[in-house]
Amino acid sequence: MKLPQSISKLIESFERLPGIGPKTAQRLTFYLLHFPQEELEDFAGALENLKKNSKLCSICKNVSENDICSVCGDPARNKRMIVVVANSLDAFAIERAGFKGVYHVLHGIIDPLNNVGPEEIFIKELVDRVAEIAEELTFESLEDYEPVEVILATNMSMEGESTALYISRALRERGLDKSKVKISRIARGLPVGGDVEYADDVTLGRALEGRHEIN
Amino acid sequence: MKLPQSISKLIESFERLPGIGPKTAQRLTFYLLHFPQEELEDFAGALENLKKNSKLCSICKNVSENDICSVCGDPARNKRMIVVVANSLDAFAIERAGFKGVYHVLHGIIDPLNNVGPEEIFIKELVDRVAEIAEELTFESLEDYEPVEVILATNMSMEGESTALYISRALRERGLDKSKVKISRIARGLPVGGDVEYADDVTLGRALEGRHEIN
Repeated sequence: MKLPQSISKLIESFERLPGIGPKTAQRLTFYLLHFPQEELEDFAGALENLKKNSKLCSICKNVSENDICSVCGDPARNKRMIVVVANSLDAFAIERAGFKGVYHVLHGIIDPLNNVGPEEIFIKELVDRVAEIAEELTFESLEDYEPVEVILATNMSMEGESTALYISRALRERGLDKSKVKISRIARGLPVGGDVEYADDVTLGRALEGRHEIN
Repeated sequence: MKLPQSISKLIESFERLPGIGPKTAQRLTFYLLHFPQEELEDFAGALENLKKNSKLCSICKNVSENDICSVCGDPARNKRMIVVVANSLDAFAIERAGFKGVYHVLHGIIDPLNNVGPEEIFIKELVDRVAEIAEELTFESLEDYEPVEVILATNMSMEGESTALYISRALRERGLDKSKVKISRIARGLPVGGDVEYADDVTLGRALEGRHEIN
């Protein structure tokens, strides 16, 4: 039995996606056979136009329809508080948590084993951006002086940690000291709803270190 | 933060697929952002042409590039042994098991709760097909006389069982008695590698019923 070529071609396309194996690719393809042709063309159009109608924001590198994204263009946002994330999905997750500052999307993390160095991701752009904001600050009055805050929100993996370390060093090496740029890392600890009994040692250690007084 | 429309449109398309929730749809879409435009167009083309370049075999209703599929058109296949399956994927699974007869794809099973009646799937076509083969048989010499065998290979679910029952009744009601058409159901029992200890009662009961002598 031979699969029609049009079917096996779509199966192959699905197989290239992450987390979709041969069985799932088959299932999805045969499911789509029952779709009306119109919906298939809608889907195809969405794929074709995916990159055509979206670009990266010139300021924060997040995906956007325009040259400057809706966050960077919003005057109500605190432009002095920049959360640095590995990808757009992480930015959306933080947005859902109610963050009111702005973002910087690296589009990857430093991962030497997979040939991703600091030059491959938007680190230089971040340092330039922060330096520019910090420079503007010096022209303001001393009273409402407030340093820029860079919050490093890469994953808690080894790669995420070393990317965060690399960025903080790069900022300091550019001459952006504590008076100009505050650098912080998102907190480690138990997740909400987490069980102390089941937490791993490292997480529990970090949760103890990061304890805070309550009233 | 607002997602570019081109991105949210593709996320919506993915969400319509079975087993793909909002999170997976997002992940797949952002992954595709890193694809070269050429590959995206390949994928889109495969979707558009999926139904254009594939049809149903006029004999067995399996997906095919031509009017008669490669199995029905193969003279080496035993045309008197017909496995009835709910969909093409099941036919491919049985093909991988080394079956050398032919297929009949129902494209669904009788499922009143989801508004699928016997008329919605290819049961009438199966009965007609079997009746036609059985009729041709009577003209052959008595010596190499061999009844048609219809093997019902729908799932062991309630819907699969009732579909099998419905088909066997429909064949008999058409006047196709045992001398002309043998009807069988695939065996129930423990799967290869299955543990007696963990098997459910019904499966174990069926496995005992279906026991066979060994030498």
